Amino acid sequence: MGKTIKLIMAKRKLETCFSPALFEPDAHINSIVVIIDILRASSAICTAFANGAVEIIPIADVSEAKDYKSRGYLVAAERDGYVLDFADFGNSPFNFTKEKVGGKTIVYSTTNGTGIINLASTAYMTVIGSFLNIGALTQWLIKQDSNILLLCAGWKNRFNIEDTVCAGAIAEILMKSDLYTTICDSTLAAIDLWSLASPDLPGYIEKTAQRTRLRDKKLDDCIEFCLTPDFTDKIPVMKNGILVADI
Amino acid sequence: MGKTIKLIMAKRKLETCFSPALFEPDAHINSIVVIIDILRASSAICTAFANGAVEIIPIADVSEAKDYKSRGYLVAAERDGYVLDFADFGNSPFNFTKEKVGGKTIVYSTTNGTGIINLASTAYMTVIGSFLNIGALTQWLIKQDSNILLLCAGWKNRFNIEDTVCAGAIAEILMKSDLYTTICDSTLAAIDLWSLASPDLPGYIEKTAQRTRLRDKKLDDCIEFCLTPDFTDKIPVMKNGILVADI
Repeated sequence: MGKTIKLIMAKRKLETCFSPALFEPDAHINSIVVIIDILRASSAICTAFANGAVEIIPIADVSEAKDYKSRGYLVAAERDGYVLDFADFGNSPFNFTKEKVGGKTIVYSTTNGTGIINLASTAYMTVIGSFLNIGALTQWLIKQDSNILLLCAGWKNRFNIEDTVCAGAIAEILMKSDLYTTICDSTLAAIDLWSLASPDLPGYIEKTAQRTRLRDKKLDDCIEFCLTPDFTDKIPVMKNGILVADI
Repeated sequence: MGKTIKLIMAKRKLETCFSPALFEPDAHINSIVVIIDILRASSAICTAFANGAVEIIPIADVSEAKDYKSRGYLVAAERDGYVLDFADFGNSPFNFTKEKVGGKTIVYSTTNGTGIINLASTAYMTVIGSFLNIGALTQWLIKQDSNILLLCAGWKNRFNIEDTVCAGAIAEILMKSDLYTTICDSTLAAIDLWSLASPDLPGYIEKTAQRTRLRDKKLDDCIEFCLTPDFTDKIPVMKNGILVADI
């Protein structure tokens, strides 16, 4: 009659941060940081890898992006939704077609997204999350034995709803695995907001500030696409300052 | 037959900020800032005025609070829930009894609350909000012709749920007056979280980090009281760096 040995595994920590201004680098050195900027940077990055991009170099500074352009790189760059004049295109996911990005290296600079990727560079690992890769991403995260921070890009350091509900959707899947624990009010609130949004995500997003901004600029054609779950199984991972697809 | 002249009034702006770290002083010079720190500073301040306190001097710095004590002032001071050794009492609303605070000036220093009051001192006006004064506060705000920022104290700059649902409850009442407009995702999210919390507020608060903190320190006896609507009609207003009751 053998003894049953119970292995009590310490659960991994799951936290959420609603703005780059609230990110505490020292607290997350041992975490995988998931960057969420669904309208539109993180959706565009997932689309680029789905369509065969080889690597993406995120650049916070406009003049540096311009310098890359002069050296012959393909450059995607926008500020406040508008394509910068020297760039090949902006950050609508629809720009990142197979024809344009297949087999290519892309230099990428946006209002919120790329700055925050550099901000999180102190973390153990940085990956890109969106609804477009949510199923593959959560399964990939579960395979890693690591604490997780869901870092919402927000808008100019402000809280936004669309990144929060995406964080809530990711958190809900992770918590159901029973591998994670959270004492983080942001995570709990994100899951609750996702519970309100999930029955009709496009309808829920309709009231957000970014929805209004994109409509006013006639840049809202891609929103429905950005809310599509599981368009791709690619996991954009930061390696030595460059994003590559892990799968 | 007279002409009907329609006066189209510009609506007042309503915004919400989830953390002192996200507060933008320049954006709110013309706003009334409502400080919300319901567990426990803003509830304690409302209780103090309900029980006859004449004025409250908010002090961010511990050594300054100590200096006031040596000059004979009544001092309420805590850090992380614990009463500082030189203080008369900490920040449980139950400390601020008629016997102790009636007719008195109180010097008050807490982990989050008093620092944030000083932070908001650039605003047009600063007032203290909680569930305890929510009815009187919202009627008072409606009488002022002003933009409003609901500023949640959070916890050490982090988002918290309890201040957010109180902001949501205040925002819901103000929006129903039809005098305000908001394009602020934080306000919309706060109202949505309040819609989830309101059927059973103590039950909803049960999962929050601060609920756990106060329970661990056996400081949770006052939570139910802090969630009580309309205990008082006092509106604590900052005047020349000192809080006084407007009503």
